[in-house]
Amino acid sequence: MEELNDTQSEIDDRGIDINWVGVSSFKFPVNVQDKASFQPTISEFSLAVDLSKDQRGTHMSRFIEVLNEHGNCISVKNISILNRHLLEKLKAQKSRVNSRFSYFVEKKAPETGLKGPIDYLVNIESILDGERFESEITVNVPVTTLCPCSKAISNRGAHNQRGNVKFSVRSSDPIWIEDLISLVESSASSELYSVLKRPDEKVVTERAYDNPVFVEDLVRNVALKANEMSNINWYKVEAENFESIHNHNAYAVIVKELK
Amino acid sequence: MEELNDTQSEIDDRGIDINWVGVSSFKFPVNVQDKASFQPTISEFSLAVDLSKDQRGTHMSRFIEVLNEHGNCISVKNISILNRHLLEKLKAQKSRVNSRFSYFVEKKAPETGLKGPIDYLVNIESILDGERFESEITVNVPVTTLCPCSKAISNRGAHNQRGNVKFSVRSSDPIWIEDLISLVESSASSELYSVLKRPDEKVVTERAYDNPVFVEDLVRNVALKANEMSNINWYKVEAENFESIHNHNAYAVIVKELK
Amino acid sequence: MEELNDTQSEIDDRGIDINWVGVSSFKFPVNVQDKASFQPTISEFSLAVDLSKDQRGTHMSRFIEVLNEHGNCISVKNISILNRHLLEKLKAQKSRVNSRFSYFVEKKAPETGLKGPIDYLVNIESILDGERFESEITVNVPVTTLCPCSKAISNRGAHNQRGNVKFSVRSSDPIWIEDLISLVESSASSELYSVLKRPDEKVVTERAYDNPVFVEDLVRNVALKANEMSNINWYKVEAENFESIHNHNAYAVIVKELK
Amino acid sequence: MEELNDTQSEIDDRGIDINWVGVSSFKFPVNVQDKASFQPTISEFSLAVDLSKDQRGTHMSRFIEVLNEHGNCISVKNISILNRHLLEKLKAQKSRVNSRFSYFVEKKAPETGLKGPIDYLVNIESILDGERFESEITVNVPVTTLCPCSKAISNRGAHNQRGNVKFSVRSSDPIWIEDLISLVESSASSELYSVLKRPDEKVVTERAYDNPVFVEDLVRNVALKANEMSNINWYKVEAENFESIHNHNAYAVIVKELK
Repeated sequence: MEELNDTQSEIDDRGIDINWVGVSSFKFPVNVQDKASFQPTISEFSLAVDLSKDQRGTHMSRFIEVLNEHGNCISVKNISILNRHLLEKLKAQKSRVNSRFSYFVEKKAPETGLKGPIDYLVNIESILDGERFESEITVNVPVTTLCPCSKAISNRGAHNQRGNVKFSVRSSDPIWIEDLISLVESSASSELYSVLKRPDEKVVTERAYDNPVFVEDLVRNVALKANEMSNINWYKVEAENFESIHNHNAYAVIVKELK
Repeated sequence: MEELNDTQSEIDDRGIDINWVGVSSFKFPVNVQDKASFQPTISEFSLAVDLSKDQRGTHMSRFIEVLNEHGNCISVKNISILNRHLLEKLKAQKSRVNSRFSYFVEKKAPETGLKGPIDYLVNIESILDGERFESEITVNVPVTTLCPCSKAISNRGAHNQRGNVKFSVRSSDPIWIEDLISLVESSASSELYSVLKRPDEKVVTERAYDNPVFVEDLVRNVALKANEMSNINWYKVEAENFESIHNHNAYAVIVKELK
Repeated sequence: MEELNDTQSEIDDRGIDINWVGVSSFKFPVNVQDKASFQPTISEFSLAVDLSKDQRGTHMSRFIEVLNEHGNCISVKNISILNRHLLEKLKAQKSRVNSRFSYFVEKKAPETGLKGPIDYLVNIESILDGERFESEITVNVPVTTLCPCSKAISNRGAHNQRGNVKFSVRSSDPIWIEDLISLVESSASSELYSVLKRPDEKVVTERAYDNPVFVEDLVRNVALKANEMSNINWYKVEAENFESIHNHNAYAVIVKELK
Repeated sequence: MEELNDTQSEIDDRGIDINWVGVSSFKFPVNVQDKASFQPTISEFSLAVDLSKDQRGTHMSRFIEVLNEHGNCISVKNISILNRHLLEKLKAQKSRVNSRFSYFVEKKAPETGLKGPIDYLVNIESILDGERFESEITVNVPVTTLCPCSKAISNRGAHNQRGNVKFSVRSSDPIWIEDLISLVESSASSELYSVLKRPDEKVVTERAYDNPVFVEDLVRNVALKANEMSNINWYKVEAENFESIHNHNAYAVIVKELK
């Protein structure tokens, strides 16, 4: 077999470094660490390294081999090991791991206490550059928002809707996904639930009516809390409300470097 | 050039007719007929014919050639001509045209009268089987729905959200897209708008509060009106509410053969 | 709590039966039965029942409660129990369960034998109508297709591409997902792999070149094998090739009632 | 009407500036300037301004009003006027316009000369910050890529596939969309066409076989040409190959600041 050409290892004379090269959209079953234990889910991975100007191509199959060897447990600690393996196996200076998965939190209905899971789309991106490691965790949190203007000007009712808050933080310390979700949920008109009986629906309806937020209020409420977090270097909070009175959305974003 | 093999025209001995074969996801700029005139939009086309068990393959490039020659005006009358051209050029018994496009209606805010367009995703599917022609028009209409249960049990407010109603009708007569959209919009808690100033937002908020509908009410309201249409043979109405209190949707569908 | 209005249970006087009503797009972690054991995945559920013309609304929270109580194991046998629970809890005549999930099969590279998983999108829809139960399993199988015409007319090379085959069967007996996937993979120019070293890539490249298939050949190859299956009542096979020489796709479908 | 509360204009005491706030996913018919004239298409707009820490909310309806008043012609020159109107109407320091649309180029088949359009997804983002204006144009160009390794190691054939190249440039001068597309298409194994008769398919197949490129070659080929462009300040080129032998993609990116 050895006589097969290694086209990838040819010398390249275009003189151009490649920032990132690798595989994308690779689905793989994993177990993600939560506060209680590990939960099974499916991750979509993108894995990349840098490529020096001298070399024509990277070796794509090695990315999948490294992932296979790594095992299927995902936590921030763990991901730094995956970064290191990529760096070694691909003989690169930098490695990047993107893992995107559904994450579940068991919710209790506010009045009856009935339980049911809600899914959150989470993304972890980790970069190892020589010895420097940093990870960015993003949670997508669906929430209820009730419009303060609509409430103030109307004799009855107020338009409300589902919104999505995308909250990202960068840190060198591990951060719990649950904590980021709670921080966002407490910033909206109401959090969401999977099971609500009538007594619960009454609580949630009145709670949203009593806590109206614009998309601007929502991102500022999250930012106020993020400013208090001691272990993060950077955050970004984006909110998008799927307005019930329009066919377009309301949008706001705050980005802040903390250190 | 004539010596190039025509692999598609080879005899096939597997003995299996193919229901539909052709091209899909072909984007093409078109002008769609509305009540006033023709409006420019982009259509995603899927074009297909049947293929007899004797022939190995159809001639894919001819579908695009037929579409190019047809010109870029789309109306139900017009589409039957496209169906006929496909049938002739591909030497088939049946032809099917799917055209999917954004369609715009200018809306007037209910109090200030300010204007702005709303987009609706429309699909036209037409089938010509020998001499028998039938088309199915589908409109996707975004609406506001306000929950009757939430209103009835809560001391203040009521959860509401954007919903989507997918309404399809089959007919051998032309039907105006605008008429299908209006029929659906008058069946919801409120229609949507692109521009709403505060006096408009007050009207829309109170109107929705005064007209609560479950997803079940919504499809029944549409069905009541569809039952009165004289020129349709069949309809299907599906509603999906993007519940503002859940991360899942409420869904209902009614299908009815009228003739 | 009892004094809260039960708006859903009101009498409806519009006289219109609803075919299906329920919840859609509910994500839930499950374990799906494969030949070896159960594999963890995330399912997107849609659950529905019929609703008689006399009743205004169904009780949406009960769908999620039934799913929670059912536990998280999914197999065709198991799903019929979920259908029955829905029917009882919602006091309906018919119930429908849709479960859509990523399913993994471990593949071995053809020459080196290196292992790696491939994901397939699977959908199970089951309907219980009184005592009559039927389920439809759909597998989406990504494959390689190499164009016979391009090979026949060119002095070197032949265009090829990834394609997707959507193969659905209806049966009252359980059917293994793996068997449906294998049936499709053996009908294409080549199956796909997640890890391929150079000796493997050589095998796969030459295999595809030696087994050219049009989209028409692909659906007929699947149909030939499906016609031999003793335990199915109906099948549908749709293939879509993401043509490497066009920005549109080639498409074919065969549907057949067997009993 | 004047007595209706202006909740948005309330003083905010959280002390947090908002980077961007506005509307997203608003569809609107436009005419985009090409080299010959203007072509009609549908744009999805996101419009935003900054918001000072003192003010509670922006006025969302004004974004749609500005767009309506602006008319429906889009060119880079034109967009700077839209940016300025937003800045004035919303009393902001910065404004951002995102416009995302299908753009068509008429292609001629290489041998028969038959014509047919191909669609490209284009995004224009323009930012006006006081007097400083900069726009970023992104073209998504579908191409054919044929694997050099597969060709080198196989006795016959070579795997190839559709790929997508996302090429973005920043400039203060207007740049033609067609020029960006051509630059990318000449960097791949072959460009794509909508109509190809057999003599054309032979040319395209052999051309791809004679010009194999890795995803790394593709981004470097684009970068070499981008380095020669005199009127750009920055570029980013991302390529993703939908590998015909895998169910995942190959990916590479180069980003470069030129001034």
